[in-house]
Amino acid sequence: MTEKYEVTERTKLTRRPHRGIYDKEAIHAILDEGFMCNVAYVHEGAPRVLPTGYGRIGDYIYIHGSNQSTMLSAALSGEVCVLVTHVDGLVLARALYNHSVNYRSVVVFGRPEEVTDPQEKIASFEAYARHVLKGRFADVRPPNSKELNSTTVMRIPIAEAVAKMRSGPPTDFEFDLDRDCWAGELLIKQVFAGAIRDPQGRQDVPVPRYIEEYEKLPSVERQEVDNTPDA
Amino acid sequence: MTEKYEVTERTKLTRRPHRGIYDKEAIHAILDEGFMCNVAYVHEGAPRVLPTGYGRIGDYIYIHGSNQSTMLSAALSGEVCVLVTHVDGLVLARALYNHSVNYRSVVVFGRPEEVTDPQEKIASFEAYARHVLKGRFADVRPPNSKELNSTTVMRIPIAEAVAKMRSGPPTDFEFDLDRDCWAGELLIKQVFAGAIRDPQGRQDVPVPRYIEEYEKLPSVERQEVDNTPDA
Repeated sequence: MTEKYEVTERTKLTRRPHRGIYDKEAIHAILDEGFMCNVAYVHEGAPRVLPTGYGRIGDYIYIHGSNQSTMLSAALSGEVCVLVTHVDGLVLARALYNHSVNYRSVVVFGRPEEVTDPQEKIASFEAYARHVLKGRFADVRPPNSKELNSTTVMRIPIAEAVAKMRSGPPTDFEFDLDRDCWAGELLIKQVFAGAIRDPQGRQDVPVPRYIEEYEKLPSVERQEVDNTPDA
Repeated sequence: MTEKYEVTERTKLTRRPHRGIYDKEAIHAILDEGFMCNVAYVHEGAPRVLPTGYGRIGDYIYIHGSNQSTMLSAALSGEVCVLVTHVDGLVLARALYNHSVNYRSVVVFGRPEEVTDPQEKIASFEAYARHVLKGRFADVRPPNSKELNSTTVMRIPIAEAVAKMRSGPPTDFEFDLDRDCWAGELLIKQVFAGAIRDPQGRQDVPVPRYIEEYEKLPSVERQEVDNTPDA
């Protein structure tokens, strides 16, 4: 049984409605895979968008920042639109018109709420750490009360949300298929490319297993190649 | 001689002003490295943000889409904020509070203009192709008049723009440096992971050199490792 978010006026896709995904599990998976989300808000009548880290607990996205953050104060006084996108490939068609991008994205519309309960604030920090890297929270110094007090945390309910994706080969027009032009997909991946130890502080601390075997991103290896013989 | 964009009320950074970069060349380089930008606009008083492909010609960002696109019609009737972000690494500090992300981003504020001149429309398609992959434009079928007519093109002047970046190791508090906790940076890279030929159409077209030697992204190889001996 798959739970779904309700389709609203804003999450209904006017073009290519078959690309709209409302499945909770699929939406959460795309959200959990990102490192930064894009938060759009309105400031003095004009649109603004900023990248920021985040975490998720159930049906809430948590974002934290300084008490002085203009984004947080503007966002908390109105609505936001949060976007997470993963680029998976470049779609090279024979017609320039049919070029596209393979991607997965989630858009969440909502009215943010400020989190003031200290326990929920700490839980949101933990969610942020878990989001970046499982196992990290147990190793670090958790925020103290001074740090908690200087941090504003907001949560955005994931209630009005839609995922979109495109995958697979290009869709050329029939009359373009016989052109002497290579067509297909270039695969793009975000990979873990290694770790650099902080030159400050203790140098004898072993590299934790959750870094050695970083599971959120694939390690670097070429996974696919063109599937036909070269000329 | 480095040309700079003028600092405005909106591009002045209130926090960490030293992270603000107004240098044209640096801003263009960050823009040119992306595949999708995030376009924020206001629709019925509420913020919206969508990912989309783009190209750049000089001091203009070009975005095209269907004549039916809600985003384009809303964007063309007001202002937009365009964001491009590259995530370069995860910054693991000893205190959870000091965790961060290494990234480069550009934000452009502006009022989009519709492009109606057919020559400029074709030039914007070419810029899009060049943006994705140099050499591609010469191989593909350029847009015909039917395709041009069904496409809305907008350009956003790059006049009010700021880049922000963070790089390097974590910044922990002095009193945290001796903790028994690995700290440093996890490197993240976007890489070219191979090409898949379209199973439709001609299968005998050789793989072009601009794909074999795709220069916009590094090929997959581990570039850095932890710089100290393991325990």
